[in-house]
Amino acid sequence: FGNKQNSDGGSSSGSESSKDSSRCSTPVLDADRHERLREKMRRRQDSGDKWFSLEFFPPRTANAAVNLISRFDRMGAGGPLFIDVTWHPAGDPGSDKETSSMIIANTAVNYCGLETILHMTCCNQTKDDITGHLQKAKRLGLKNIMALRGDPVGEEWEEEVDGFNYAVDLVKHIRNEFDDYFDICVAGYPKGHPEAESYEADLRHLKEKVFAGADFIITQLFFRSETFLKFMKDCQAIGITCPVIPGIFPIQGYHSLRQLVKLSKLEVPQEIKDVIEPIKDNDAAIRNYGVELAVSMCRELLDSGMVHGLHFYTLNREVATTEVLKRLGMWKEDPRRPLPWAVSAHPKRRVEDVRPIFWASRPKSYIYRTQEWDDFPNGRWGNSSSPAFGELKDYYLFYLKSKSPREELLKMWGEELTGEESVFEVFTCYITGEPNKNGHKVTCMPWNDDPLATETNLLKEQLEKVNRRGILTINSQPNINGKPSTDPIVGWGPSGGYVFQKAYLEFFTSSEIVTALLKVLKKYELRVNYHIVNVKGQNITNAPDLQPNAVTWGIFPGREIIQPTVVDPVSFLSWKDEAFALWIEQWAKLYEEESPSRMIIQYIHDNYYLVNLVDNDFPLENCLWQVVDDTFELLNSPTQQ
Amino acid sequence: FGNKQNSDGGSSSGSESSKDSSRCSTPVLDADRHERLREKMRRRQDSGDKWFSLEFFPPRTANAAVNLISRFDRMGAGGPLFIDVTWHPAGDPGSDKETSSMIIANTAVNYCGLETILHMTCCNQTKDDITGHLQKAKRLGLKNIMALRGDPVGEEWEEEVDGFNYAVDLVKHIRNEFDDYFDICVAGYPKGHPEAESYEADLRHLKEKVFAGADFIITQLFFRSETFLKFMKDCQAIGITCPVIPGIFPIQGYHSLRQLVKLSKLEVPQEIKDVIEPIKDNDAAIRNYGVELAVSMCRELLDSGMVHGLHFYTLNREVATTEVLKRLGMWKEDPRRPLPWAVSAHPKRRVEDVRPIFWASRPKSYIYRTQEWDDFPNGRWGNSSSPAFGELKDYYLFYLKSKSPREELLKMWGEELTGEESVFEVFTCYITGEPNKNGHKVTCMPWNDDPLATETNLLKEQLEKVNRRGILTINSQPNINGKPSTDPIVGWGPSGGYVFQKAYLEFFTSSEIVTALLKVLKKYELRVNYHIVNVKGQNITNAPDLQPNAVTWGIFPGREIIQPTVVDPVSFLSWKDEAFALWIEQWAKLYEEESPSRMIIQYIHDNYYLVNLVDNDFPLENCLWQVVDDTFELLNSPTQQ
Repeated sequence: FGNKQNSDGGSSSGSESSKDSSRCSTPVLDADRHERLREKMRRRQDSGDKWFSLEFFPPRTANAAVNLISRFDRMGAGGPLFIDVTWHPAGDPGSDKETSSMIIANTAVNYCGLETILHMTCCNQTKDDITGHLQKAKRLGLKNIMALRGDPVGEEWEEEVDGFNYAVDLVKHIRNEFDDYFDICVAGYPKGHPEAESYEADLRHLKEKVFAGADFIITQLFFRSETFLKFMKDCQAIGITCPVIPGIFPIQGYHSLRQLVKLSKLEVPQEIKDVIEPIKDNDAAIRNYGVELAVSMCRELLDSGMVHGLHFYTLNREVATTEVLKRLGMWKEDPRRPLPWAVSAHPKRRVEDVRPIFWASRPKSYIYRTQEWDDFPNGRWGNSSSPAFGELKDYYLFYLKSKSPREELLKMWGEELTGEESVFEVFTCYITGEPNKNGHKVTCMPWNDDPLATETNLLKEQLEKVNRRGILTINSQPNINGKPSTDPIVGWGPSGGYVFQKAYLEFFTSSEIVTALLKVLKKYELRVNYHIVNVKGQNITNAPDLQPNAVTWGIFPGREIIQPTVVDPVSFLSWKDEAFALWIEQWAKLYEEESPSRMIIQYIHDNYYLVNLVDNDFPLENCLWQVVDDTFELLNSPTQQ
Repeated sequence: FGNKQNSDGGSSSGSESSKDSSRCSTPVLDADRHERLREKMRRRQDSGDKWFSLEFFPPRTANAAVNLISRFDRMGAGGPLFIDVTWHPAGDPGSDKETSSMIIANTAVNYCGLETILHMTCCNQTKDDITGHLQKAKRLGLKNIMALRGDPVGEEWEEEVDGFNYAVDLVKHIRNEFDDYFDICVAGYPKGHPEAESYEADLRHLKEKVFAGADFIITQLFFRSETFLKFMKDCQAIGITCPVIPGIFPIQGYHSLRQLVKLSKLEVPQEIKDVIEPIKDNDAAIRNYGVELAVSMCRELLDSGMVHGLHFYTLNREVATTEVLKRLGMWKEDPRRPLPWAVSAHPKRRVEDVRPIFWASRPKSYIYRTQEWDDFPNGRWGNSSSPAFGELKDYYLFYLKSKSPREELLKMWGEELTGEESVFEVFTCYITGEPNKNGHKVTCMPWNDDPLATETNLLKEQLEKVNRRGILTINSQPNINGKPSTDPIVGWGPSGGYVFQKAYLEFFTSSEIVTALLKVLKKYELRVNYHIVNVKGQNITNAPDLQPNAVTWGIFPGREIIQPTVVDPVSFLSWKDEAFALWIEQWAKLYEEESPSRMIIQYIHDNYYLVNLVDNDFPLENCLWQVVDDTFELLNSPTQQ
């Protein structure tokens, strides 16, 4: 095509490229999904967009794991560039236990959608062990490793011949065995490693690690910005050019500080000791001071122009770190989402941009049940082409468990049920946010572990009305006819676009209501698509050729169309199994076997239908409420049937 | 999933199916595109929807071929179930000549999008010849063969041992060599084949052909409906159950009737002779009578309840057949289109549902230049994934030639050009429909062989204004924010849907205007995407990551989203070559070398830019006219550089 010209603001076009393997590639909505960590860091550095990251350690108990995962979700909302999970050699870190480093990192990546670095130590481990851990990490979708030596187990540590004695051995091993697959991070010690011969010798070790293939450096904590800035200059002086990220430790309490200082063999500066000692029993005061101190040190670092990102040692706590970030203006709770659902960060899901709507409130369950898929739908869901969904054994997985313990669930959903109406009451209270008759708010349901979404709130009044009458809604969305993609409630995707939705309503209801509903639906045959199914798989639908129906889509400047949510008749049958099972697994089992309460839930499970309705006429007023009204009118008319 | 239930009007859901090879399958917009001919026939029969088909013979000259192709386009608009092309053994029917049966059928399928049956005769041909023809037909995308014996060449025909002596031999050969690939049609003789021992013997031969693998029967012409109805009953009586389609011959003239009767050895009934002989020199009177006769015979056939489709021997003429079909109410010029562009009927293009907008007025050129592709984009065009377009040698292909001869083009585009302004004048006259200064209407342009599309008419006033000033438009569409899919002008796809468009404008213009335009476009940076290129390939664009921009899409009940048209930065560079070349090939070459007229066109070709603009804000008023106005304002302002 001859010579090309690059105008201001315009990008020069490439020549005809040969055909890609897949023609249905995802329009690049969000570069973050396609870049590796070191590329993201470089892009942020180039654009001057400061970032932060968060370090966590694996929890000790399964319950703590459940809490940590919801902390990931909450802190993930602030927009960290990545999180990292430490490696606890004593805690069987590579195992499948819910408290292992490996599984926590896996959960962060796959279920919370966070870019994640898994720490890994090498001393006292065989090459095979390490290779095994790395292979497993790769298989789980982990893409970044923090290569560490680890603390020697015995009193006196001695080098092993042919063993992994230093982090640099691990870096070399990863590059040898896995080529460029992983991004590798190594640790830097602004005051020098406590065991190093000298500060200078330690810097040389660091350079070795970088030259062996590390992509960036995160430093040990320090107490003064000068410490880091000097260290950074020294790094540059000996030829280390990769990013060096300061590790920030907001002091959160007297004991945690002492413990960390002891472990890291660091000296707390006298001016800090002077402040802390007098207030050592006042946790709040220490935390406030710690926040203050961290904020001013971070400001100094950022103002130096040498620092582009800050790494926080959170100690698995939220308050102090979040506060520091908010004060720095770096906590970016962006209500805008790249897609309407929470993406997974597994590399093989990078192109995924369409999902059935059914799992909208249970994205982790969807990710779990599709984890074995080799590739993921993008562009279109496709016609009856959904591969099999995984087995339904997810109630037992910590990251899919309800955050609320049994006692709380009983308070919300009723210590004792007296009939189907008391179930209607629970659904209604969940919708309205009003306390139930015992004064407890219903903040979650078996199908939704969180309070009602802001978007669903738009439908609150109508939802309340129908739930009272036994239309037990578990999923819904209003119709949207071209709102800006930046809309705080229904917006998603890049700015300058327009988002659309077809009205959707999904509910359980009795067979009596279904019979009337089917009669009413005949009037709406061309406008409303329906799928009605019971636990036995009896299945009634008017979907043409079992094709999926796109119910959420977005139109963006300079891009192809994105349609992230569909109502797919085939996957509805897999969802049906899960939706019905939740009655039993999450609700009925709260009660004694054979108890009346349990039998009521069992009855609903056995006899109710799961119904979904789509109003295809998205530019008109949602007709689904009229459909429900017509159904009750028919039921109440003396001549019905 | 246990037992399933089929409600009235609803279709029963299948169980989870295993994954398709392609996840991006095309939503079934139009079953016609996916079914083979015998399935279409069966579906029409089941639904009681009467159909017709049209027979043509290959033309004798290249010019006649050009005319026949535009006749295919016109008569294709009436909705034939298929057309068929006869096999002329004397005319080198399997060759690559533009007048061969093979190439005419190829053009009908690929470029006119018509379901087509290619006739093939077998006598006096070797097995290898026949296999070669069939292989070629398959390669070209032909799916249906009418298997015939053909007329013996010599005076006295003798059976050849091991040769193809009867149509049944050809049917068997096709099934042996090509399995079920082709749908096979055979000929039936309502009066018996003239060479058959008897009517009964001929029926037995027909049964043999069907049992050897023929899918349906088309009959020889006949003059009375009773002839066909008796024949059909006789067929059924001996166990022929496949469709039998009556061949209808509307009498169009005295001589053509005599010739056909002679060839087919049929007897014209006395009552017809009695009418025709007295008016034998009055063509119009004979044709009117022929139409009358055909209409009443067709009505009798349809009223019998035994006939679901009618096959017309058109003799390559339009008027009589069209008239008969209109009188029968079977001519269905449906303004609704399955997609906004004319689809090709090649089986490998069955899933194609997205194309670059550039070829909107030159669909045959697009099909030609992509004929070597192995698969076709559907769902999404994909990111920079367009395979190479074919070489630009299409000016020489009869089916891409202008329908207007050189003299007419000169009258339209000017016998003599006096400057760039006289070129602006031609563009303006094409837009307005007003005659040029010599009194000739400009009904085509090098980039568009047809008058302005109805849709473009919506923009007429603005287009006229800008063409007068040297913005030489060759393609455009208005923005559409959700019109019903049944809209007569911009609608497409199944009913009940909504169609959308982003405003698009493509034009040639001088580098002076481009310079000003680029300054103006900075103000519209987030709203307007642009691509600006000259013949040397200098290329200026603000398309993000060279991604395609969807500019036409549709939302339909119970379906995924269809986005049939994109502005793709990569294919724009292939289109650019074609668009610039058309200046020379179609316009400059009308004039003598070195003539001033030719040099004016050559100057424009060498110096102008091809520009395309998309306004991404489709719900707002089209801003592209404002962009052009701003550009001229800037050009006319005294302070502009």
